[in-house]
Amino acid sequence: MPTFTTTRRVEFGDTDMAGIMHFSNFFRFMEVAETDFLRARGLSVTWPADGARYGFPRVSVACDFASPARFEDVLTIAVTVEKVGKRSVTYCFDFTNGETSVATGRVVAVYCRSASGGHIEALDIPDEVRVKLTG
Amino acid sequence: MPTFTTTRRVEFGDTDMAGIMHFSNFFRFMEVAETDFLRARGLSVTWPADGARYGFPRVSVACDFASPARFEDVLTIAVTVEKVGKRSVTYCFDFTNGETSVATGRVVAVYCRSASGGHIEALDIPDEVRVKLTG
Amino acid sequence: MPTFTTTRRVEFGDTDMAGIMHFSNFFRFMEVAETDFLRARGLSVTWPADGARYGFPRVSVACDFASPARFEDVLTIAVTVEKVGKRSVTYCFDFTNGETSVATGRVVAVYCRSASGGHIEALDIPDEVRVKLTG
Amino acid sequence: MPTFTTTRRVEFGDTDMAGIMHFSNFFRFMEVAETDFLRARGLSVTWPADGARYGFPRVSVACDFASPARFEDVLTIAVTVEKVGKRSVTYCFDFTNGETSVATGRVVAVYCRSASGGHIEALDIPDEVRVKLTG
Repeated sequence: MPTFTTTRRVEFGDTDMAGIMHFSNFFRFMEVAETDFLRARGLSVTWPADGARYGFPRVSVACDFASPARFEDVLTIAVTVEKVGKRSVTYCFDFTNGETSVATGRVVAVYCRSASGGHIEALDIPDEVRVKLTG
Repeated sequence: MPTFTTTRRVEFGDTDMAGIMHFSNFFRFMEVAETDFLRARGLSVTWPADGARYGFPRVSVACDFASPARFEDVLTIAVTVEKVGKRSVTYCFDFTNGETSVATGRVVAVYCRSASGGHIEALDIPDEVRVKLTG
Repeated sequence: MPTFTTTRRVEFGDTDMAGIMHFSNFFRFMEVAETDFLRARGLSVTWPADGARYGFPRVSVACDFASPARFEDVLTIAVTVEKVGKRSVTYCFDFTNGETSVATGRVVAVYCRSASGGHIEALDIPDEVRVKLTG
Repeated sequence: MPTFTTTRRVEFGDTDMAGIMHFSNFFRFMEVAETDFLRARGLSVTWPADGARYGFPRVSVACDFASPARFEDVLTIAVTVEKVGKRSVTYCFDFTNGETSVATGRVVAVYCRSASGGHIEALDIPDEVRVKLTG
């Protein structure tokens, strides 16, 4: 059962010369859906705290395409939290256009702390974050 | 052994507020490497013929991220043709920055014909295309 | 007086390493606002008719930046039709974030017909389109 | 007389459903040309120093489009430094495809210091930077 559902319209600038949404933009749409989901749970993909930055950089992403998305299509993106591990969360994204399956994506994001010098470090997901993710 | 190697620099506009290349741009870099490879073989990702358009839309893509890419990094992208099937070709992309592994991607593209009305149809890869892909 | 107002949120992928929306994305936001406006008037930026494609490619665009837009800012974009000429329409876009002025853009788009061979031809704006633009 | 010249190829992902380079990507190409120019002069669009970040955010940009750029076109971008003011530098960018004029852009960038808290402050261009810009 999807954890969260949002919609996003394919804009003119999202298309390519094949007349369909460029495949890389599905990952931008996944990010929007992930961010919407996190915001609904009182989280975000990045936030400042303790003079550093916390967030969920992606370590593994994938997408399978079933049918093209075109200009002005309003895609429904269903977000499912598949797994919350020690340090990572795995999402599945189902893209549909009405009754038509458009694409299925998967993102693994790791809970990280970025120091101001640019060093990025993976951390165990704290309980208060885990509770929000698992809803 | 990689089939082909190219390089591409991370531009300012490729980065995000985390100070690193946005993950979706790795797919744009893969496309550039794939196109460079195809061009070196006398092919392309899309071309007109017989009043239609032929080419290799992607049906499945993935990327695992090992270390961040930053502004002005010049990434080396090694393209390996992993498999040429009846209708599809599978590529592996290894991103390195000097000795550092940055990311590994995989793309499955299907040989297709697009009629002017927008209908896209998968076809068997003709021998003259197959010969160029397998080099 | 603005002709039309819409909003759009700055996504993570819209930012750059300076921590603010990359300047090129303001033009993508203008396109979204222009498209929203046209749709509200029963038009679009591109549509098929008579075996060709009609629409409004841009011939001149500009943007002045007053203050940065950041991740999760919800920008209000006010669209004003400044002028409808013989073949072109000129839009002004005011970006605000609450009471703060963020940017001001201008786009000149020309009414065009694209034949399937790729040839693009400017045309006089027909009366039925003009009426919708001038509202 | 142009100060600097570079080239960049139009990639598949740079195009839109009209079959031409999406207008917003001309600004990405200008940024690449600007960065190439600055690098050739021992500068950049952003660099760390004194625990802060220095660089040249854009405050005003524009582009006029003369003819479309298409997939695999290799555009020549001639950069001219039009003016170096007290705090800003104005560039002109001429895009050509062989003998054909494609577009002309203009960018005004202001010399700025960004503190780690995110505050951005315009500064007078120091002599050692000015000398490099004016060549």
